[in-house]
Amino acid sequence: MSTVSTELYQEIQHFYARQMQQLDAGEAEAWAATFTEDGVFEANAHPEPSMGRAVISAAVRQAHAKLTEAQEVRRHWLGMLTIDRGEDDTLFVRSYALIVATKKGGTPSIAFSTLCEDTLVQDGGSWLVKYRKVTRDDL
Amino acid sequence: MSTVSTELYQEIQHFYARQMQQLDAGEAEAWAATFTEDGVFEANAHPEPSMGRAVISAAVRQAHAKLTEAQEVRRHWLGMLTIDRGEDDTLFVRSYALIVATKKGGTPSIAFSTLCEDTLVQDGGSWLVKYRKVTRDDL
Amino acid sequence: MSTVSTELYQEIQHFYARQMQQLDAGEAEAWAATFTEDGVFEANAHPEPSMGRAVISAAVRQAHAKLTEAQEVRRHWLGMLTIDRGEDDTLFVRSYALIVATKKGGTPSIAFSTLCEDTLVQDGGSWLVKYRKVTRDDL
Repeated sequence: MSTVSTELYQEIQHFYARQMQQLDAGEAEAWAATFTEDGVFEANAHPEPSMGRAVISAAVRQAHAKLTEAQEVRRHWLGMLTIDRGEDDTLFVRSYALIVATKKGGTPSIAFSTLCEDTLVQDGGSWLVKYRKVTRDDL
Repeated sequence: MSTVSTELYQEIQHFYARQMQQLDAGEAEAWAATFTEDGVFEANAHPEPSMGRAVISAAVRQAHAKLTEAQEVRRHWLGMLTIDRGEDDTLFVRSYALIVATKKGGTPSIAFSTLCEDTLVQDGGSWLVKYRKVTRDDL
Repeated sequence: MSTVSTELYQEIQHFYARQMQQLDAGEAEAWAATFTEDGVFEANAHPEPSMGRAVISAAVRQAHAKLTEAQEVRRHWLGMLTIDRGEDDTLFVRSYALIVATKKGGTPSIAFSTLCEDTLVQDGGSWLVKYRKVTRDDL
């Protein structure tokens, strides 16, 4: 394990900002494309992991449709990133993620506070999530 | 549109941190000086946009006086920035902003969750907001 | 006072991310090691400052034990950093810190909203907190 350059730290911050905005906007295809083809999304809130882009995008599409119907906006804030570089240039990113939920005419609240543990790999010029593990603090 | 360098991404993060701290401290003149002379602040919570530094600083001065009287502290958190560079070096920044409100003796709460869309231009060595559009999630 | 390079701004962001994760994980020794030997932690919520690593680590150990017993997870989010460099390469960092608290089976809430004012000094390759002053917004 070694630490990472400031350029890389910055690049990863920007990567997550775009990824969270895509998620909140319901851009399911763009979101899934930030995972590897065989990417895995594991969460202690889900009975089993989502595996592969098709499953990952379908989950977002479904969740976003429900939120739209409920007139609720969600904002994912991902921050406090620590990044370590493993062998083969794999990155291990540990971060916090807050999900802020606001209903039309309502008051914002924190729906969930989570720990997010990602394994990122590089593909061409882009970083992709190979494995994500999200742990909700309340479970 | 093209993406931006890590140096620039960083510079803009620092720019916003100072700007939000100035806002929360009620430094109305310093805040207004982060907009262009003809800068515009548009918000779906306001009947019409604030145009120009004089109007923008007056709005902050008035809002801050009310908060001080109500013994309420507000903290603007702006994050999850995505930055794209247009022609003429104009920057288009899309970010989330949370406003955390705390009354003396009270419990903090999220007053507002918003989307912030900025057009930034460079003036000498500094970046300035030419146009800001703030969209509250609850409206 | 002068402003800081993008590399340094980034380095300090990463420093805080690690420090907050150590705090929330109850890693009392690692946390205390991010302060100078004679480091001071002052807070308007405490009757008097904690001085020195032994006192600082003991405070974290005790606080973490209580939270574990209460089945509560806390996440410290530190952000909106402004950094100024003084003489002798001392850094003055002003930031906001939110403490998000979640009980097992409960809903997350913001326990505290604070202003954090740090004096950082360099020791070998690392930055250390020489003086931290935390001001809770509700007091």
